Amino acid sequence: MYSAYFLMSDEDVKKYVQAKIKDFSGELQCREIGDGNLNYVFRVTNEAGASVIVKQAGPQARISESFVLSTDRNRIETEALMLEAEYTPDLVPKVLLFDQTMSCCVMEDLKDFEIMRKDLMAFHTFNHFSENISTFMAENLIRTTDFLMNPVKKKQLQKQFINPELCEITEHLVYTEPYIDFKKQNMLTEGNEEFIRDFVYNDKEMHLKVAKLKQQFLTQGQALLHGDLHTGSIFINQKTLKVIDPEFAFYGPIGYDVGNLVANLTFSWLRALAFNEVDYGNWVENVLVETMEKFELKARAILQESIEQFAIYEEVVEGFLSSILRDTFAIAGLEINRRIIGLAKVADITTIEDKEARILAERRGLSIAKECIKNDTISSISEYLQLLLKYKGEVLI
Amino acid sequence: MYSAYFLMSDEDVKKYVQAKIKDFSGELQCREIGDGNLNYVFRVTNEAGASVIVKQAGPQARISESFVLSTDRNRIETEALMLEAEYTPDLVPKVLLFDQTMSCCVMEDLKDFEIMRKDLMAFHTFNHFSENISTFMAENLIRTTDFLMNPVKKKQLQKQFINPELCEITEHLVYTEPYIDFKKQNMLTEGNEEFIRDFVYNDKEMHLKVAKLKQQFLTQGQALLHGDLHTGSIFINQKTLKVIDPEFAFYGPIGYDVGNLVANLTFSWLRALAFNEVDYGNWVENVLVETMEKFELKARAILQESIEQFAIYEEVVEGFLSSILRDTFAIAGLEINRRIIGLAKVADITTIEDKEARILAERRGLSIAKECIKNDTISSISEYLQLLLKYKGEVLI
Repeated sequence: MYSAYFLMSDEDVKKYVQAKIKDFSGELQCREIGDGNLNYVFRVTNEAGASVIVKQAGPQARISESFVLSTDRNRIETEALMLEAEYTPDLVPKVLLFDQTMSCCVMEDLKDFEIMRKDLMAFHTFNHFSENISTFMAENLIRTTDFLMNPVKKKQLQKQFINPELCEITEHLVYTEPYIDFKKQNMLTEGNEEFIRDFVYNDKEMHLKVAKLKQQFLTQGQALLHGDLHTGSIFINQKTLKVIDPEFAFYGPIGYDVGNLVANLTFSWLRALAFNEVDYGNWVENVLVETMEKFELKARAILQESIEQFAIYEEVVEGFLSSILRDTFAIAGLEINRRIIGLAKVADITTIEDKEARILAERRGLSIAKECIKNDTISSISEYLQLLLKYKGEVLI
Repeated sequence: MYSAYFLMSDEDVKKYVQAKIKDFSGELQCREIGDGNLNYVFRVTNEAGASVIVKQAGPQARISESFVLSTDRNRIETEALMLEAEYTPDLVPKVLLFDQTMSCCVMEDLKDFEIMRKDLMAFHTFNHFSENISTFMAENLIRTTDFLMNPVKKKQLQKQFINPELCEITEHLVYTEPYIDFKKQNMLTEGNEEFIRDFVYNDKEMHLKVAKLKQQFLTQGQALLHGDLHTGSIFINQKTLKVIDPEFAFYGPIGYDVGNLVANLTFSWLRALAFNEVDYGNWVENVLVETMEKFELKARAILQESIEQFAIYEEVVEGFLSSILRDTFAIAGLEINRRIIGLAKVADITTIEDKEARILAERRGLSIAKECIKNDTISSISEYLQLLLKYKGEVLI
C-alpha cells in the first residue's frame, strides 16, 4: 500500500490507521497536534473515543526547510522506545506499529498526561517524580553499558543507534555555539548581551573545559542515551510519568542524560526564584536531591549484577559511579548555558516577563553553569545544592 | 559463479583467480602460505612469474574449531586497507578485488618484503622505519578523528567498522586475562609462575588501573585503529614497509595502536639485551625515540588543519596530543604483559632458549609494564626511555 515515503496529510493518516490498527477500521477523527520542530504528530480517535498517536518524521525541520534531516530518526526513536520498554515498560509509551518505509510509528496516546515542563511552569508538584525518573535513568542507562550487557551485543546496539545527524545538532547547539558562535545563531536576551560576551564568550578557561567535554560527547559510547532528557520530553500526571521522544538516542556518556535532567530542573528552580515562589523552589531542591540520591542507589544496585570481571573490585564500581556524577554536573552546566545563550530556549525562562527578573534568572543560571563546568569538585548533589544556595541570595546585577 | 560462501582449496583459488584477475587467466601455481591463526592466505603465480595474494577468512579460528568467528572480518580488513590507501597509499598493499560473498580479497603480493618481526629477531636494522611508521600512524589515526573528519562522516565510518568479535578477543586477551585468568588460558613460563602470581595477579592497584583502561577500550571511539599494530603486521625491506592485516580495525583509542608498536619494539630491545647485542639494543632505543618524536611532530602538523572549532586554542591540540601519549605508554604496558603472560606470545621472547635469560627478559618486561600502567607520569618517550635504561642493568632474579 505504501511502497515509498511521502508526508501524510490528516486524511492520509486516517486511511493509514484504518488499514493498520485493530479497532480503528471505522470512522475516525484526526488532528495534527505536534508542537515540536522536527516531526508531525497526529491524534487519531475512533467512534468509541479511543485514540492512538501517529508520529511521522518529516524530511526537513519544521522551522526551516533548508534544515534537512534524515527520516531515519523515526526508526531510531521507535527502536529506542522498544528497547526502553524492555527495561522500564511502565515508563514509556507503548509502540503499536513501526513503519520504516513511511518513517512513522503508531503508539499509545498519553491523553491523561501533560508535558512536565508546562506543569513545572505552573508550579505543580509530583511526589512520584524522583522515584520514577531515577528508575528510568538507572535501568536504561546502566543496563546498556558494558558492565551489564555483553560487549558484543552492546556493540551491535551501538551500531543500530549510530545517529550522526541528531548528534550533530547537539554538538553544535550544546557543545560549541554557546561559546564560539560560529553560525551566528545565538540569541542573547536584551540587557544580557554584554554580560554574556564577557562572562561566557571571553572565558577561555571555560572554553578549554568545554572542548574536553565535547571530545567526550564525540567519542565516548558508554550507554544508550535518551539523548534529549529534558522536562519537555516527559509526560506526567499525579500517578506516573512516561518518557517520550528518544529520537536523539545514541551510545554516549551517561552524564549527558542525567545532566540534562538536572539542568532542566534547575530552570524550574530559577523560575520559582524569579516569581518568588519560595516553597516551590524548596520542592525543586528536594526533587533534585531525591532524584540524584535514588539514581545513585539504583545504579549501584544494578551494578551488583555486573558481568565485567574487574567489577569484583568495589573501587571499580564506585569509580564508575563517581565519573558519571562528575560528568553529570559538568554537562548540566553546558545545558544551562545553551538554553540561555543558544538558539533553543526553554519556556521556564523565556516566559519570565519582568525584564529585570529574567536577566537575574539568566545570570544566576550562567553563574551556576560556569562553576559546574570549570570546577571539577562539583561531583555530588550536595555540592550542587550548595551551589544553588550560594546564588539564591546573590545579586549579580 | 559463487553465490554462497565456501572455504576454498588451492584448486578453487586457482579457478577463482583465473576468472577474476587480469593477466591471470592462464596456467597458475597456487600455494597456501598463511601462518596466522584466523585466515587462509594463498599465493597465486602466473606463467610470467607475476603473483597475487588471495586472503580468505575461515569460519573458525585455525587453532581451535570451537573458536568461531564471523567471516565479516574480511570485509573489515579489506575496507580498512582501502581507507588506509587514501591516506598512505605507499604504506599498504594494493587491494585488487574484494568479494563479500566469499569473504575474500585479492591483493598485491609483497614478495620483496619480510615480516618485520623475523628481521628484528635476526637483529637487522632499517633506517627508514621510524619515518614510514610514524607517517602511517599519524596519517591514518589523526585524520580519522573528529578533529580532521566531519563528525557526521566519522560516525558513518564508525558504524562501518563496528567489530564486536575481534574487539572481544582484545578485551579478553589484552585487557582481562593477564590479570584475572578467567578462562584459564594464560601460559606462564616455567620458573616465572610464582613471580607472575605475586607481581601481576596479586597487584590490585595495577588491576584498578587496567580496569579503567579497559573501560576506555570498550567505549572510546577516537580514531579508526589498525587494531593489531605489532611488528608481525608489518612487511618490510631496506627501502620501505607495508602495514598489513587490519582485520581488528575499529574506532578506538589512538594510544592502542601506538602503544602496541612501542611494546613490540620493546620486545626487540629485551631480546637484544638477552643476547647481549648491545649495539642492536641501542638501535632499538633510537628507533623508539625517533618514531615517537616523528609521530608527535606529524600529528601536530596534521592537527593544524583541524576542523574542530575549539582547536583555535593551542591548549586543546596539545592536551589531545598529551592524552594520546599518556594512553600510549599505559597501553604499551598492557601489551607487554599480555604477550608474556597470556595465550598469544611473541617469538622475540619465546625463542630465547637460555632459560635464565628468558626469565630475566620476561621480568624486565613485566617490570617496565607495571610502571607504565601504574605510573601516570610516563607520558613521553624520554620518560619511557629512562624506564628502559633503569631496567637495563637491574638484576631481578
